Amino acid sequence: MAKKAAKAKKPAAKAKAAKKYVYFFGKGKADGNGEMKALLGGKGAGLAEMTNAGVPVPPGFTITTEVCTGFYENGKKVPTGLDDQMMQYIKKLEDTEGKKFGDSVNPLLVSVRSGAKFSMPGMMDTILNLGVNDVTVQAIIKNTKNPRFAWDSYRRFIQMYADVVMEVSKKKFEHLIDARKEKKGIKVDVDFTADDMKDMVAEFKAFVKKESGKDFPQDPIEQLKGARDAVFKSWMNDRAIFYRKANNIPESIGTAVNVQAMVFGNMGDDSGTGVGFTRNPATGERKFYGEYLLNAQGEDVVAGVRTPKEIENLGKDMPAVYKQLRDITSRLEKHYRDMQDFEFTIEKGKLYMLQTRSGKRTGMAAVRAAVEMAKEKLITKEEAILRVEPVQLDQLLHPVFDPKAEKKVIAKGINASPGAAAGRAVFTADDAVEWTKEKGEKVILVRLETSPDDIHGMDSAVGILTARGGATSHAAVVARQMGKVCVAGCEDLKVDEHSKTMTVKASGLVIKEGDWISIDGTTGQVMNGKVPTMEPKMEGEFGEFGEFMKWVDEFKTIKVRANADIPRDAKVARQYGAEGIGLCRTEHMFFDTDRLPYMQEMILAKDVEGRKKALEKLLPMQRSDFSGLFQTMEGYGVTIRFLDPPLHEFLPKREELMVEVAKMEATGKSQMSNEMLKKSLELISGNGTDLEKAKILLARVVELHEFNPMLGHRGCRLGITYPEISEMQTRAVIEAAIELNKTGKKIIPEIMIPLVGNVKEFLDQKNVVDMTAKAVMAEKGVKIPYLVGTMIEVPRAAVTADEIAAQAEFFSFGTNDLTQTCLGFSRDDAGGFTKAYIEKNIFTSDPFQTLDQVGVGGLVKMAVEKGRKVKAKLKIGICGEHGGDPASVEFFNGAGLDYVSCSPYRVPIARLAAAHAAIKVSHAKKGTKKAEKDK
Amino acid sequence: MAKKAAKAKKPAAKAKAAKKYVYFFGKGKADGNGEMKALLGGKGAGLAEMTNAGVPVPPGFTITTEVCTGFYENGKKVPTGLDDQMMQYIKKLEDTEGKKFGDSVNPLLVSVRSGAKFSMPGMMDTILNLGVNDVTVQAIIKNTKNPRFAWDSYRRFIQMYADVVMEVSKKKFEHLIDARKEKKGIKVDVDFTADDMKDMVAEFKAFVKKESGKDFPQDPIEQLKGARDAVFKSWMNDRAIFYRKANNIPESIGTAVNVQAMVFGNMGDDSGTGVGFTRNPATGERKFYGEYLLNAQGEDVVAGVRTPKEIENLGKDMPAVYKQLRDITSRLEKHYRDMQDFEFTIEKGKLYMLQTRSGKRTGMAAVRAAVEMAKEKLITKEEAILRVEPVQLDQLLHPVFDPKAEKKVIAKGINASPGAAAGRAVFTADDAVEWTKEKGEKVILVRLETSPDDIHGMDSAVGILTARGGATSHAAVVARQMGKVCVAGCEDLKVDEHSKTMTVKASGLVIKEGDWISIDGTTGQVMNGKVPTMEPKMEGEFGEFGEFMKWVDEFKTIKVRANADIPRDAKVARQYGAEGIGLCRTEHMFFDTDRLPYMQEMILAKDVEGRKKALEKLLPMQRSDFSGLFQTMEGYGVTIRFLDPPLHEFLPKREELMVEVAKMEATGKSQMSNEMLKKSLELISGNGTDLEKAKILLARVVELHEFNPMLGHRGCRLGITYPEISEMQTRAVIEAAIELNKTGKKIIPEIMIPLVGNVKEFLDQKNVVDMTAKAVMAEKGVKIPYLVGTMIEVPRAAVTADEIAAQAEFFSFGTNDLTQTCLGFSRDDAGGFTKAYIEKNIFTSDPFQTLDQVGVGGLVKMAVEKGRKVKAKLKIGICGEHGGDPASVEFFNGAGLDYVSCSPYRVPIARLAAAHAAIKVSHAKKGTKKAEKDK
Repeated sequence: MAKKAAKAKKPAAKAKAAKKYVYFFGKGKADGNGEMKALLGGKGAGLAEMTNAGVPVPPGFTITTEVCTGFYENGKKVPTGLDDQMMQYIKKLEDTEGKKFGDSVNPLLVSVRSGAKFSMPGMMDTILNLGVNDVTVQAIIKNTKNPRFAWDSYRRFIQMYADVVMEVSKKKFEHLIDARKEKKGIKVDVDFTADDMKDMVAEFKAFVKKESGKDFPQDPIEQLKGARDAVFKSWMNDRAIFYRKANNIPESIGTAVNVQAMVFGNMGDDSGTGVGFTRNPATGERKFYGEYLLNAQGEDVVAGVRTPKEIENLGKDMPAVYKQLRDITSRLEKHYRDMQDFEFTIEKGKLYMLQTRSGKRTGMAAVRAAVEMAKEKLITKEEAILRVEPVQLDQLLHPVFDPKAEKKVIAKGINASPGAAAGRAVFTADDAVEWTKEKGEKVILVRLETSPDDIHGMDSAVGILTARGGATSHAAVVARQMGKVCVAGCEDLKVDEHSKTMTVKASGLVIKEGDWISIDGTTGQVMNGKVPTMEPKMEGEFGEFGEFMKWVDEFKTIKVRANADIPRDAKVARQYGAEGIGLCRTEHMFFDTDRLPYMQEMILAKDVEGRKKALEKLLPMQRSDFSGLFQTMEGYGVTIRFLDPPLHEFLPKREELMVEVAKMEATGKSQMSNEMLKKSLELISGNGTDLEKAKILLARVVELHEFNPMLGHRGCRLGITYPEISEMQTRAVIEAAIELNKTGKKIIPEIMIPLVGNVKEFLDQKNVVDMTAKAVMAEKGVKIPYLVGTMIEVPRAAVTADEIAAQAEFFSFGTNDLTQTCLGFSRDDAGGFTKAYIEKNIFTSDPFQTLDQVGVGGLVKMAVEKGRKVKAKLKIGICGEHGGDPASVEFFNGAGLDYVSCSPYRVPIARLAAAHAAIKVSHAKKGTKKAEKDK
Repeated sequence: MAKKAAKAKKPAAKAKAAKKYVYFFGKGKADGNGEMKALLGGKGAGLAEMTNAGVPVPPGFTITTEVCTGFYENGKKVPTGLDDQMMQYIKKLEDTEGKKFGDSVNPLLVSVRSGAKFSMPGMMDTILNLGVNDVTVQAIIKNTKNPRFAWDSYRRFIQMYADVVMEVSKKKFEHLIDARKEKKGIKVDVDFTADDMKDMVAEFKAFVKKESGKDFPQDPIEQLKGARDAVFKSWMNDRAIFYRKANNIPESIGTAVNVQAMVFGNMGDDSGTGVGFTRNPATGERKFYGEYLLNAQGEDVVAGVRTPKEIENLGKDMPAVYKQLRDITSRLEKHYRDMQDFEFTIEKGKLYMLQTRSGKRTGMAAVRAAVEMAKEKLITKEEAILRVEPVQLDQLLHPVFDPKAEKKVIAKGINASPGAAAGRAVFTADDAVEWTKEKGEKVILVRLETSPDDIHGMDSAVGILTARGGATSHAAVVARQMGKVCVAGCEDLKVDEHSKTMTVKASGLVIKEGDWISIDGTTGQVMNGKVPTMEPKMEGEFGEFGEFMKWVDEFKTIKVRANADIPRDAKVARQYGAEGIGLCRTEHMFFDTDRLPYMQEMILAKDVEGRKKALEKLLPMQRSDFSGLFQTMEGYGVTIRFLDPPLHEFLPKREELMVEVAKMEATGKSQMSNEMLKKSLELISGNGTDLEKAKILLARVVELHEFNPMLGHRGCRLGITYPEISEMQTRAVIEAAIELNKTGKKIIPEIMIPLVGNVKEFLDQKNVVDMTAKAVMAEKGVKIPYLVGTMIEVPRAAVTADEIAAQAEFFSFGTNDLTQTCLGFSRDDAGGFTKAYIEKNIFTSDPFQTLDQVGVGGLVKMAVEKGRKVKAKLKIGICGEHGGDPASVEFFNGAGLDYVSCSPYRVPIARLAAAHAAIKVSHAKKGTKKAEKDK
C-alpha cells in the first residue's frame, strides 16, 4: 500500500509542475477574476476583480490555495516549479512598477498577506515592507527625505519578520524597546528620533542573530520565500484552527498568499494619501466625502498628528488625480452597487487604490442611502431594504451622545434598552419622583435591581441603571416598554441603596445621590458626569424613513404588533406602525399607586367575599384602561393577558418586613418608622399597634412567600384558584368592548390565559370567561365577538399543543418564560453565569435577547406543527422580548407565525426584520425553483 | 326521511317483540353465563356465572341492556312484550322460592339493581325490599318475630322508592325523621322503637301522597315496573353521564336491570348471616376465616351491637350448612382463582351466597397468599406476581399503627414517606438532637419546611412533619432517603418555630414542645398523643417475601438501582436488592457539620487559589465517602452526580442574617446572640466585631441570593464557572476507584454532569473530568475505566438529546427537575395549587409522585428516541423520585430505559412494579401475536 501510494505520488507531483501556481494582477489586467475565490482566496480574487475593472491597485501576484494544499501533502514544502514561476512574476512585477528588489535607487518593497476563500480576520500572519535591507533603506531615505520613517519601517520589518519567520517572539523586541525608552526617559514611540530608530535596527539585527543563530536575511528573494512559507504555515496555527472549527470552515480549502507592491505617499509633494466615502456615512447624503494629506503615509491621516484636508481640496492640489479618484470611486460604487469606503495613496503623482469596501454608516445614513440608491436605480427596492440592518433603526429612534463629547467611562453593563441619557443619580423610586417633580431635575434611577414597586420611579427617570439582572430583567423589560434608556446587570458597580451611593469596584470611585452620571443603553457604558446628548434627527430625514418603512411593509408577510399596557404606550405603538396589541399585561395596571391598595386588600381578604369586594373597586379602573386601549387600537386586535404574577409581588417584601419587625421587637418600639411599609399596615383591620399589625401582615407575606416564584402560584393558576379574579377581568374586557361598540367603533378583544400547560387548565378558565361574558352580554343586551386563547410558555404546552389547539382560539408564545423553563435559566439570576457561557461559546448570544433556535425554537416549531395539525388556520403569535430581535423575527417568520409582538419602540425594527425574512424566503424559493428548472 | 325512519322503526319494533329480554338465574341454572357482560351487564353475567357454578345465590332475573337502548330509542318506554316476559319470570321466581308477591304468609321481596357492562359504582339507583306493603309487612313481622325490623324495612323502602321513582326527595324524609327525633328527645336512629317505625310508615305514606299527589303503590308488580323504569332513567342522570365521560364509557352500551329475591337471616334460629375469607386477609395464612350471627340480618354483623361468633362454631350450630359453605367457598376460590371475600345468609336452614369477590388483604397477606396459591398450582408464578400491588410492599417494610389503638386525628397532610411514628414534638433540628441524645426521647421534628440545615435533626427524629411543601419537598425526599416517616405540606397546621408551638387551624388546639404526637406517613394523618406502633413482622414471613422477590426478578427486565449518598444507605439498598447506585448526590456529603465550614470557606474565598485551598481539605473526605460506596456496591455501577445545588444553600439564610444585623444595629450591640450564625462568622477573616463580620458575610450572601434558585447558578453551571470544584470531585472519584482496584475489587464509576441543557456544557465538563482523570492515573500509574454521562433534567436537553448523546456515555433522567421545568411547577411552591388542581381533575395525581406521562413523559420519549438514534445502545436510566412509583416504572419500562433508581426503601416496590410492567408487555405481545395468527 505504502509503496503504491509513493508511486502514485510522483506522477502527480510532475503533473503539478505543469500547473499555473501564480496569478498576476497589474496594469489593468489580471490572470484571475472575482469568481476564482476558491483558487485565489477572497482577497486575491478581489484584487484581480479590481484590476480587471480598471481600478489602479498596486500590482502583484497571488500564489494559489492549491500550493497550500500541496505544501501540507508534501511535508511542508512548496511544490517543485513554484519558485521558478514566482521568479518569473517577480520580474513582471519589477517591470510593471519600474522598481527592483534590492535596488539602491528605486527599490521594490512588497507586502505578503494570507487570504483564504472565507475571511479569517487576524488569524494568519501578514508581513509588510518586505524588501527593506541595509541597501534599500538608504534609497527610501533619499526618496522620502524622511530618515526616521525609513529606519522605522526597517525596524518594524525586522520585528515582524523575525516573529513570523524566524520564531523570535515579538514580545522580546518590545522588551528591548521598553529598555531603550527607560534609558532615554521617554514614554511613547513617537518621541524616538531617527537615530534611535537606526540604532534599534542594529540592535534588532544583533538580537536576531543571538536568538536564532542566523543573520537577518538581506536578500529580498530569501525574505520573500521565508515569508511565503510562514504564511502557509500559519494556516495551521492554533488560532486559525480554532477559528475554522468555530466557523465551520473546512481545513482542506487552504489559503492563498498575496504578494503586492508597497506604495508610498510620503515621497514628496506629488505624493499623498487619503480615505473617503462615496456618500456621507453620517447622513447618507450623496456627496463625495473624505480627507487626505500630501506627502504622508496612511498612518499619518489616522494618527491625528497633522490635520487632514477635506477631499474637495485635492481638486486644486492635483486636479487630474482628483478627477481620476472621483471617476474610479463612482465606478466602484456602480460596480459593487453600494456606498464605498476607500483608501488611496498617490505615489509620485500616480494614484493607487489600496482598499475599497462597503462603507459602514449610521442608521440614518443607511436608510437615506438605501432609498436614494433605489431611486437612482443602482439597486432594487428589495436590495434597499436588505441594505439596512434592523438594529440600525434603533439609532433613528433614540437620543445618542454627542460623538464629539468627552466620555469618562467608569463601568460597563448590559445594553438593555437603547439610547443615551444623562441625569442625577438617585437610589430609590421615591427619590426619583421627588428630584424630578419637586426639583425639576433629570435623574437616572440606580438600583441593585428593580421590582414592580419601582415603576413610579422608573417612569420619572430618564434612565435606569441596575447592578443585577440581564437583558430581560424587570428593569430591562419595563425600560424598553417605556422607551427609557437602561443599562442593566452592571456588575462593575456596587450599589448601596441604604447609603444612597454606588461604588465602582475597580477604581473605588463613589457616586452619591445628586451626582451627574450618563448611561448609554446602546453600548452598556456608564459614564461619570453629564455627557451631552443629541435628539435623533428624525425631522429632516422623516421623508426617507417614512418611504423606506412603506417599502418594508410591502415586502413583509408576518404582522408586527406591540406589547402595550396603557393607552400612552399604545399610541406610540400605532405611530411606529404596530398592527395591534399582542400583549397587554393587565397586572401593570394594578401597580399604580391608586390601585395597589385595592389589590392588596384583595390579597389580604380572608375569604372569597372579601376578595370580591376589593375586585369590585378595581373593576371600573380596569374597564377604563381597556377602553383607552380599545379606542387607540380601533380596527386592530388587542390581546389582553389575564393576571400573571404571583400575588406576593403586590405586597411588601418579606425580608424588609422581617427586618422591621425584628427592629421594633429589639428596641421595644411599637410604631414603625418605614413610611412605605406603614401604608400597607393600614390594610390590616382592627385596632392594634404597628408591631401587632406588622406581624399579621408578615404572617400573610410569609404564607405567600415562594422559593421559586417563576414556577409558583401565578398565571392561570391564580385564575383557577381565585376564579373571581378572572371573572372581574372578563367583565372589564367585555364591558369596555361593548362601550366602544356603542360608539360605532369595533374591536375584537382577544383574552389570553397565561401559563397554561394542560388543556384542562385552559378549559377551566375559558369556562369562567364564557360564563361571565354571557352574563355581561345578557345584562347589556348586546352580543359582541371575542376570542379566548392561550400563552404557550411552558414546555408542557408545546408538548401538548395539539390538545390545547383543539380548545383555544389562538396561541401566543411567551418566549421569555419558555426560555426560562426550556433552558432552566432564571432570567433574573442568569447574570451569574451568562457571561461565562458566552465567553466559552456555550451560547453565542444571550438567549433572552436572541431566541435559542435549537432548544426553545425546537419547542416553538413543535407547538406550531401540533397546533396547526388540529386547527389548520390557528392564529399564532409571539409576545416575548424576542419579538423585537431581528434574528428571532426571521426564525418566527420561518416557523409560520402570524405575528410578532414587541415593545412599541422596537416595532420599526421588527417590521424591517420581518421584511428581510420575507425577502430571504422568497429568494430561497426562487433558488429552489431555479435549481429544479436547471435539472 | 322522517317518514322512512318511522316506517323502518315499526318492523324493527315488531322484530324486537320476539326477542328474549329477560334472563333467569336460579336453582343451579341460568339462562345466561359469565361471558355475556355486554347483554346482561357485569353484575347480571356474574350472577348467571355463579348460579351455573352451583353456587346458591338468591334467584332472580336480568332485564338486558338492549331494553335500555330500546327504552331511549322509544321515548323512554320499554319495548312491547317486555312486561309479558317479565311476568312469566316473576312466576318462575315465585315458584323457585316458594314465595309470592304480596302474599300474606310467605311474601316475595326483591331487590332491583342497575348493572352495566362496566362497573359504575353508586352512579345509578338501587331499590331494596321491593314488595313490602301493608299486607306483607305483617307476614314479615310474623316470620322474623321482629316488628321493628319489619316496619323499618317498610319505612326504608318507601323512602327509597319515593325518591327514585316518585321524585320526592330523600332529604325531605330526613327532615321528617329529624323532627321526630327532636320531639322524642333522641339522637340516633337505633333509639327509635318499633312503634316509632310504624308511625313513620304512616307518616311517610301520607307525605308521599301530599308531595306527589299519588298514593304510595301497594301492588308489588306496579312497584316493580316503576323501579325498573327508574333504573333505566338513572342511566342518563348527571352523575352517570359525568362518570362515563370521565371514564370513557360509551353511552350506547346501556344498563341492565337485575331483579333478585331478598333473603332474610333473621327468620329464627335456623337462619343467620355472616361474612368470611377463604384465607386470612391479615397474614395470608390458608385458613377459613370469618364471623356469623344466628337470627340476624347482615347489618347486625357490621353494626357491632351483637358480638359475632367465629366461623368455626357454625360447624356445631349447623353442620350441614357449614360443610356446604366450606365446600362452596373452596369451589369459589378455585373458580375465581383467588382468595375470596364472601357474604352469606341462611334463611330457614337454606344457605344463600349474597356476594363473593377477591378479598382485600394486607401487603403481608398478599405476598404469602400469592406465593402459596402459586405453589398450590391455583395460579401461575406470573399471576402470583400480578396479585400483589407494588405499593402493598410498603406495609412490609415500615412500622404501622396498632389497628386496635384509638386515634385522635387532628390534621391531614401529604403522605410523603410511609410508616408510623410517635414522638415528642420538637421545632428545631438542634432540639431534635438534644431531646434524642440527651434526654433519650423519641421525637417528631415539626418544621414550617425543612432545609439542608435540618439534616442532623431529621437524622435524630423518628418522623418529620412539615406545614409546607409537597411529596417531593426537601423534607419528603430526604425522609424517604433516610427511611423516616414523613407527613409534609400539612396546611391544616400553623407552625411557629419561634415560639415552638404548632396550632391546628380548625380547632385551635396548640401542641407545645415535648407534647406527644403521632404521624402516619402512609395516610398523611397527624394524631394527638402517642399512638402505639407495631414493627413490620418481616421475620416470620421473610421466607415467602424472599421467594416472592426472587420470582419478581425472574420476570422484570428493567434494572432497579437506588439513590444513595452514604455507605449506610447503600447497604440498605443492597439488602433490598438494588442493582447499583443510580444517583449519589455528592452535595449531601458537604452538609455534614464537620465539612460545612470547609464548604463555606470555599464559597467565601476571594479567588480561585482560596477556593482550591478549601477544596483540598474536602478532597480526602469526599474520597473516603466514595470508597465506602464503592466497597458496598462492588461489582455494580455507581453513578456519582457532581455538585448540584446553588452555593447559597451552604451559607446562612439571607433573611435570618438581615434580621440579626438589623437587631444588632437597632440595639447598638456588637455581639451576635444567634449561636448558629456566630459559627459562620468565624470564617470571615481579620479582626472586627460580630456586627462588622456579619455585614461582610451578609454582603456575600446577598450577592449569591437568587430569585429562582431552581433555575439559577447550579448544576453544571457551577462546574463551568468554578472548574476547580469538578477537578476536586473527579480526583476524589478516580482516586477512590484506584484504591478499590488495588484490593482486587472492581467498580466502574459513572460520573454524571447535572443540569446539562446544551452539549457544549457537557463537553466543557467532560473535558475537565478527562484531563483530571488522566493526570490522576498518571500519578498513580494505574489506568481504570470510567464513564462520563449526563442528567436529562431540563427540556432543552430532551430537545437536543441527539447532540448530547453523540458525546455522553449515558443519560439519566432527573424527572423531579424535568417535571419542574416542563410544567413550570416549583415543587416547593406547588402546594398552593396542587390540591385545587387534583380536585378539579386537571391532574389526576401529584405530578411529582406519579410521572405526568403526556407532558414530562413526552419529553422522556423524545430524548430516548433522539439519543438512541445517534447511539443505539446508549445506557439510559432515571433517578428522580418517580423511579419508585409503580405507574411511572411501568412507563419507563415501556419507554425502553435500562434502569430506574429510587430511594433504598422503595427498591422492592420498584422491582415488583418492573416485573408487573414486563409481564404486561409480554401479555400484550402474545395478544398481538395471537391477533396476527387469528388473521
